[in-house]
Amino acid sequence: MKNFDFYNPVKILFGEGKMDQLPMEIPANAVILMTYGGGSIKKNGVYDKVKQSLAGYKLLEFGGIEANPKYETLMRAVELARTEKVTFLLAVGGGSVLDGTKFISAAINYAGDPWEILAKRGAVIENVVPIGSVLTLAATGSEMNSGGVISKLETKEKLAFGSPLLFPKFSILDPTVTYSLPVTQIANGVVDAFIHVTEQYLTFPEAAPLQDRFAEGILQTLVEIGPQALINPLSYDLRANLMWSATMALNGLLSCGVTTDWATHMIGHELTAFFGLDHGVTLAIVLPALLREAAEEKREKLLQYGARVWGITVGTEDRRIEETIQKTESFFRSLGIKTKLSEHGVTKDQIVPIVERLADRKWKLGERRSITPERVERILLACF
Amino acid sequence: MKNFDFYNPVKILFGEGKMDQLPMEIPANAVILMTYGGGSIKKNGVYDKVKQSLAGYKLLEFGGIEANPKYETLMRAVELARTEKVTFLLAVGGGSVLDGTKFISAAINYAGDPWEILAKRGAVIENVVPIGSVLTLAATGSEMNSGGVISKLETKEKLAFGSPLLFPKFSILDPTVTYSLPVTQIANGVVDAFIHVTEQYLTFPEAAPLQDRFAEGILQTLVEIGPQALINPLSYDLRANLMWSATMALNGLLSCGVTTDWATHMIGHELTAFFGLDHGVTLAIVLPALLREAAEEKREKLLQYGARVWGITVGTEDRRIEETIQKTESFFRSLGIKTKLSEHGVTKDQIVPIVERLADRKWKLGERRSITPERVERILLACF
Repeated sequence: MKNFDFYNPVKILFGEGKMDQLPMEIPANAVILMTYGGGSIKKNGVYDKVKQSLAGYKLLEFGGIEANPKYETLMRAVELARTEKVTFLLAVGGGSVLDGTKFISAAINYAGDPWEILAKRGAVIENVVPIGSVLTLAATGSEMNSGGVISKLETKEKLAFGSPLLFPKFSILDPTVTYSLPVTQIANGVVDAFIHVTEQYLTFPEAAPLQDRFAEGILQTLVEIGPQALINPLSYDLRANLMWSATMALNGLLSCGVTTDWATHMIGHELTAFFGLDHGVTLAIVLPALLREAAEEKREKLLQYGARVWGITVGTEDRRIEETIQKTESFFRSLGIKTKLSEHGVTKDQIVPIVERLADRKWKLGERRSITPERVERILLACF
Repeated sequence: MKNFDFYNPVKILFGEGKMDQLPMEIPANAVILMTYGGGSIKKNGVYDKVKQSLAGYKLLEFGGIEANPKYETLMRAVELARTEKVTFLLAVGGGSVLDGTKFISAAINYAGDPWEILAKRGAVIENVVPIGSVLTLAATGSEMNSGGVISKLETKEKLAFGSPLLFPKFSILDPTVTYSLPVTQIANGVVDAFIHVTEQYLTFPEAAPLQDRFAEGILQTLVEIGPQALINPLSYDLRANLMWSATMALNGLLSCGVTTDWATHMIGHELTAFFGLDHGVTLAIVLPALLREAAEEKREKLLQYGARVWGITVGTEDRRIEETIQKTESFFRSLGIKTKLSEHGVTKDQIVPIVERLADRKWKLGERRSITPERVERILLACF
């Protein structure tokens, strides 16, 4: 096991009715900016509940944070927060609203050009505005971590950032607010959580059996409950377990003491930036192709994953690995997700600029930094 | 799943050499009281390393905190801390030193008689002195939680306490410091961690499949590595995984959304208080007898535990449950632990005062509050 630090001070308030605790978690004299997305919270009652709970506060709002939140949009919220001297940010939404709000938090008092937070390695984030969240979608895990991913329209970039200062002070996870979500968003959330786990687990053995077991536990749970959660939108327990699984998938626990991959995400981000595909969908497209390309590097873990999560224990190693990858892709497809770029109207010539950009950046991806731009090209061609 | 709050702000610094980070974690002007136990840290070099790391600080020390730390001993440390105006407590040791230091932290500024912290339900703990820890033994999980257990010599009582204010600010987990521990302490630690898990897991199904998987993951890991860790004292990975498993076994994660048991601990505490038996040993004695007594209440979970942890899937339910309990007891015995009270020189007539005290207290134990004093008597009689 490698050395590691683990620190996660997010207070999780989990369950039906937990929104009532909001006023206990925010300082009484706070000037709150409530951030949200496209307005679904106005339809499902969450918006009204938050407003009710916070009736005693000075409460401003900023709606319209889009999926794959845009730098351009968020900078308008930063302006508003600066003008109104906002002292607390309350993100009400899914991962995009949360990620966007973390960026707003970091940008409000940032000394230089806030774009540096995304573009400059080692940009110093300090003096953030505290964040709380009311989660409305189980997927990204942003509610219990300190990172985010932001897109820039102008340059088609999608870039990650983070700081230990950006952990939410609290996150309210009420599974009932996910009842009204479209099936596609639930499906994308299952895939997102699933692949957050594989990024930290499907690498190489590193003498960390407990982290392996935890990772497998989340995968097994998602396999068990994911398809059911789609067709039983009003099952509290299914939605609750999905929510908790997604949170645990990316709160820092699985990566303790091990080397992580994240190549699927890096390639997936490009597919979103270029073709506007949903984040979860891009992951479901890339992962099977990446696992085949990197099967040699990931051999031991693929065999272990196949045996423990899919019960695949018979046949040659190569056969078991191929069967494991097929099972994985079938699982995504069983959730209604199209796992080929061609099914999303993308043509092979359209991937050229992605490969060129990765070559320019000289990125070497994966847990061994062995996924070169040439191999990314092979992976992307295998997504058709 | 039940509603729950989860909050655990302990910063874990894990790995060989992490003690070097001590000065980064303690305020520069702190007056530190270093607490420790019987002096093994002076033999294995930990004492010197801590002193070296903290050369720039005003550093006082209080040694001699015993296993099952005594109220009487701890109150002497409280006096010292008050006199010297200590502003930071550094616990260097195992669970007893950590638990004891949490009590010292709570008692220093406590408004009334500090005994109330242990004896009075609802005693208000506020204004604690911050704690950090250097863990030297994997067992209790105290390094990443906010509770403790303290004994009172005078009245043979062993009582639990806790407060969210008592989370250590940080805990340093360096597996190499456990290399020199006696085999019995490693064995007791494995059992302690194992039974922390069963207390939160072997109850009744509550639609919390992920918590089940995490619990099973820790148990599987302990079964795999426990016996090896005993006979390979210098294996970094074995000791590291044992340490991380013990920490994860009682940091609040497993009990999220589920009802917990703790009857084995409550009964075990009495065995320690009356007969001076090691904590881990008392748990290994009580658990098999308790599982047989409560087999009906725990039926579904016992079957699941048997199947997933021990691979027991064939035979009638009753047969599988009995085999599962036997496997569990054999596991403890394989660690060199004697699981019968008679093996520790206790006679049947000696358990009478324990049963009488529990009857006086009118305690009903277990996840269903169904373990009455009469059933405790049956359980204890089955420990011979």
